[in-house]
Amino acid sequence: MLKRELNERITRTDAGTPMGEVFRRYWIPALLSEELPEPNCPPIRVRLLGEDLVAFRDSNGQVGLLDAYCPHRGAHLFWGRNEECGLRCVYHGWKFDVTGQCVDMPNEPPESNFKHKVKTVAYPCWEAGGMVWTYMGSADAQPPHPDYEWLRAPETHRFVSKTFEDCNYLQALEGGIDTSHSSFAHNNNLQDKKALRSRATAPKLEVHKRDHGFTYVGIRDLGQDGVYVRAYQFVMPAQQMRGYMTNWSTGEPEEHPSVNGHIWVPVDDEHCVVYNWMYSADPDHPLPRDYCIEHETLFGRGPSNSLPGYRLIRNKSNDYLIDREVQRTKTFTGIKGINTQDFALQETMRPIVDRSKERLGAADAAIIVARQLLLEATNDVEAGKSPRGVHPESHREVRGCDQILPRGVAWQEGLSNEMLARF
Amino acid sequence: MLKRELNERITRTDAGTPMGEVFRRYWIPALLSEELPEPNCPPIRVRLLGEDLVAFRDSNGQVGLLDAYCPHRGAHLFWGRNEECGLRCVYHGWKFDVTGQCVDMPNEPPESNFKHKVKTVAYPCWEAGGMVWTYMGSADAQPPHPDYEWLRAPETHRFVSKTFEDCNYLQALEGGIDTSHSSFAHNNNLQDKKALRSRATAPKLEVHKRDHGFTYVGIRDLGQDGVYVRAYQFVMPAQQMRGYMTNWSTGEPEEHPSVNGHIWVPVDDEHCVVYNWMYSADPDHPLPRDYCIEHETLFGRGPSNSLPGYRLIRNKSNDYLIDREVQRTKTFTGIKGINTQDFALQETMRPIVDRSKERLGAADAAIIVARQLLLEATNDVEAGKSPRGVHPESHREVRGCDQILPRGVAWQEGLSNEMLARF
Amino acid sequence: MLKRELNERITRTDAGTPMGEVFRRYWIPALLSEELPEPNCPPIRVRLLGEDLVAFRDSNGQVGLLDAYCPHRGAHLFWGRNEECGLRCVYHGWKFDVTGQCVDMPNEPPESNFKHKVKTVAYPCWEAGGMVWTYMGSADAQPPHPDYEWLRAPETHRFVSKTFEDCNYLQALEGGIDTSHSSFAHNNNLQDKKALRSRATAPKLEVHKRDHGFTYVGIRDLGQDGVYVRAYQFVMPAQQMRGYMTNWSTGEPEEHPSVNGHIWVPVDDEHCVVYNWMYSADPDHPLPRDYCIEHETLFGRGPSNSLPGYRLIRNKSNDYLIDREVQRTKTFTGIKGINTQDFALQETMRPIVDRSKERLGAADAAIIVARQLLLEATNDVEAGKSPRGVHPESHREVRGCDQILPRGVAWQEGLSNEMLARF
Repeated sequence: MLKRELNERITRTDAGTPMGEVFRRYWIPALLSEELPEPNCPPIRVRLLGEDLVAFRDSNGQVGLLDAYCPHRGAHLFWGRNEECGLRCVYHGWKFDVTGQCVDMPNEPPESNFKHKVKTVAYPCWEAGGMVWTYMGSADAQPPHPDYEWLRAPETHRFVSKTFEDCNYLQALEGGIDTSHSSFAHNNNLQDKKALRSRATAPKLEVHKRDHGFTYVGIRDLGQDGVYVRAYQFVMPAQQMRGYMTNWSTGEPEEHPSVNGHIWVPVDDEHCVVYNWMYSADPDHPLPRDYCIEHETLFGRGPSNSLPGYRLIRNKSNDYLIDREVQRTKTFTGIKGINTQDFALQETMRPIVDRSKERLGAADAAIIVARQLLLEATNDVEAGKSPRGVHPESHREVRGCDQILPRGVAWQEGLSNEMLARF
Repeated sequence: MLKRELNERITRTDAGTPMGEVFRRYWIPALLSEELPEPNCPPIRVRLLGEDLVAFRDSNGQVGLLDAYCPHRGAHLFWGRNEECGLRCVYHGWKFDVTGQCVDMPNEPPESNFKHKVKTVAYPCWEAGGMVWTYMGSADAQPPHPDYEWLRAPETHRFVSKTFEDCNYLQALEGGIDTSHSSFAHNNNLQDKKALRSRATAPKLEVHKRDHGFTYVGIRDLGQDGVYVRAYQFVMPAQQMRGYMTNWSTGEPEEHPSVNGHIWVPVDDEHCVVYNWMYSADPDHPLPRDYCIEHETLFGRGPSNSLPGYRLIRNKSNDYLIDREVQRTKTFTGIKGINTQDFALQETMRPIVDRSKERLGAADAAIIVARQLLLEATNDVEAGKSPRGVHPESHREVRGCDQILPRGVAWQEGLSNEMLARF
Repeated sequence: MLKRELNERITRTDAGTPMGEVFRRYWIPALLSEELPEPNCPPIRVRLLGEDLVAFRDSNGQVGLLDAYCPHRGAHLFWGRNEECGLRCVYHGWKFDVTGQCVDMPNEPPESNFKHKVKTVAYPCWEAGGMVWTYMGSADAQPPHPDYEWLRAPETHRFVSKTFEDCNYLQALEGGIDTSHSSFAHNNNLQDKKALRSRATAPKLEVHKRDHGFTYVGIRDLGQDGVYVRAYQFVMPAQQMRGYMTNWSTGEPEEHPSVNGHIWVPVDDEHCVVYNWMYSADPDHPLPRDYCIEHETLFGRGPSNSLPGYRLIRNKSNDYLIDREVQRTKTFTGIKGINTQDFALQETMRPIVDRSKERLGAADAAIIVARQLLLEATNDVEAGKSPRGVHPESHREVRGCDQILPRGVAWQEGLSNEMLARF
């Protein structure tokens, strides 16, 4: 439960808002690299933290991220011509490089000095892990690039994707870091009472704050079979990491053990983009492309489930194609695709959920701490301090994992090896 | 004409508004029984007086009407599983019975007492006349169930339907209780100068306030043929009753004499649902289903004229398929369907009509009194008094009728028998 | 660059706003004559300066322009029956003539005097140049009809059309009076380096204020070939005139030399209609209809490019069907149609462009002066004075033209003959 004022504080991310200023202290994903497939390709529209931007990849392969509106008279640079090392506005031919500097102004007299004085808003871009990252804050507070393990894994071992979501980032994030809903919303086999997720629906939760955010662990008691432990990471400001080493249904080891995660990035207050990543847990074991596509499909994402703009075919306008008969007999929700199930829940809570009416329980411990850290960060930034998790050293060694441990073994001990980074 | 402040007062119905509090003192229809066809069927969304709700029929056949958003973290209960005597949220499995009590909370530890403390908003439901009625006000002011004659008529003698309308409830209601527009908007045979509606376009109106609301009578002088009298009832807060005993065109008795009516229920300030009902005027004469369907079609409603969600195929987005050639030569509006004609007029006055600019005449007497009673009710409720028409005794004997009377016979006398309830 | 308050002042045109009151001092086009093709034809909806109106052509051919909402109870007169010299509301049969006077009220008693007291809002209409003009201001300030040369040209020599545009009128107007963008946005042949528009992309601009608004001249230096001079007129409050005598690509005389122009009329603050007109520059030379249609097509307008409601097939919802390969190799924008190019730019600057962030250069001189005159007019009207360009004498002799002049010849001299009205 959050008072109305705190709910506003934690959910709004336009420039000048407390949480908007927090997001502007971190490197965040702006787009997938695949959206700008080659030098001089057409520019694309990007909306980020309530700002309208245009991204382009210049002749050198460098990505630029500019204010969408030409500083001259406000024409949209989406229409622009991506020319030799710069994006040229098609209204009057003004051309800008990736730093935002105007480098040509052909409708002004050749002797004019005006172009040197014009520089548009441009955010620094950095490409890593199949994504273009940007930093939208003040230059003096700019931190070094992030150093998540999945960014260090080679491309053969990694897969990334994204999905556009029609709600505020926070309820999406909260759904992502919530462990107990998996036993319900994602129970896709009602008959299988032996599935791990069905055998213990009220996991015991532990949460430990750390420099990158927090580690939290969901512990499911399987009786004589031991305990099923899922260890997650919440990385500030809006990333989750989890293990995918043990099959959630059978308890057997996964054929392609991996670490998975999401980053939630606010588009504006009522929309966000979820970046999905996974990488092989084991450096000796690349991730087959086929397996990755299959995984995407299982989650209801990927080419076969998507509309242009990374939107889902199963969406709010068609009630996510819920099948009530399937819901009655086969799956808990009647909705196909694990993330589609999440979207159905998150997008219909209203654009921004009203947290003043919540009744939180023990199962919500991770969510409660995430809110604490986000609000702590708004206070830190207002006080001129660096918020938690900005420094790359804090994320270097962070990894999620899951495993069945024998009864009586503390997870810290049982998982100590699995939780170490290997890239 | 209403001053802007009074127009606001009489049209807004969210919780806490003066008219919203009035509506929350009466039993009002929330849905048709057919929308929840059997026990444990899928839940449906209901929006009422600006509140988002979910209705479900439990294993015992009892209908529950709950706040749409799960009190835990705000997931929409529309996705819910309708299980043994309760609706289970698919996010974390919390289950609620028709009283709103949480009866299961499987993601919390078994020893937890938390579920007993959680009760969501639930409005009492009562099923009668093919509709589910609800009461959304405070428990201490809850009146006994309504007792309209049509609720007492057996199912063989009654037909009910509903239509979704894209405007404020009041302009829909005002269109419904307006008698003189029938001679114009509903003149579907321009050539027939002998039709009753065409022979006297300026009916004399009488209005008499009563405990249930008011009785009003439209009197059309047919010269030597007598006077055509239509006696209507306005029942607080938003119901009209009228007779359908005499054919409006020919003056002959109807083959299936009936009493008809509408109830207008605010969905929110810019949308409403019109519930349509009719029942045989004569206990010895059931209403054939075929006739009812034919009647629906004549009014532009019913399966052949509707889209999902009880919306009309002929609607604002397609200009109600107006045919200007038909309008020029055959019907007054060129629009097919009596209620479609009403909708075309009511939905395009703007979402809430600006009553500060009206010029009302003698023909608007019933509308003027309806507004008086509604505003009187806002004052009564604010003063802690019971508003008019809440008590079922006031509606027991109320019925509408229409008949051609000889000249010189007072309608009170001529209709005294026809206006008595027979069920 | 305009401060935020001045941007509001100059862009908002509802009744009571400073610029809205300016527009209400001029005769402005309300519709094309073709929209009401014959006496007693169906009425149409018109939205103008934020007001909802209905236009109809009565039995005498006279056009009426009435408040859309019947003064009785607010029904929309679009549904009305266009009968003998009046428009009849289909709700209760009230009938209004073109002056707004209620001339029949058949639902009130015959003896009633009420109809004589009811008069609805009606704006005077005047038909000329294939358009219906209206004046929406107070009667005492009503000026004589406009007297542009194109209104005096015979129908055989003139062509008019219109297009609905999805943005504030001012950014549309500013795009229209901007001369330098033609070298970029409208460069539809990237290979042709000899085209006039490509040979001098930074025209020298001269602006001279006059009674009708201002004359401005774009001068392109062609080296030894002379100077290409385009002389334009800006006529208050929102009209542009230009010559089409010299081919913009080849420098050869046009086969059908004409004078062209646009009038921008605010629909409301976020939409406008552009009226396009052209007439033969030469009284001895009618404009062939085929040529006019071809011209419309070249500009991306006309029947083959339009949806109902004078909207373009290539529009914002489909990114104007931009073809990035065409943009890369053939045309500057990759968008087909000269005005479609304008619309793509103007409609995506946001509904109302934020002028507080602009960086204007020498090429924007005409735009700067247009804003000065419009703001001057808001001050004049507030001071009770007549704004510039209201009096028809000021526009009688105004005409645009373009020509290649020998070096050293002043444009005033070189164009003195071409700039004289010939009708």
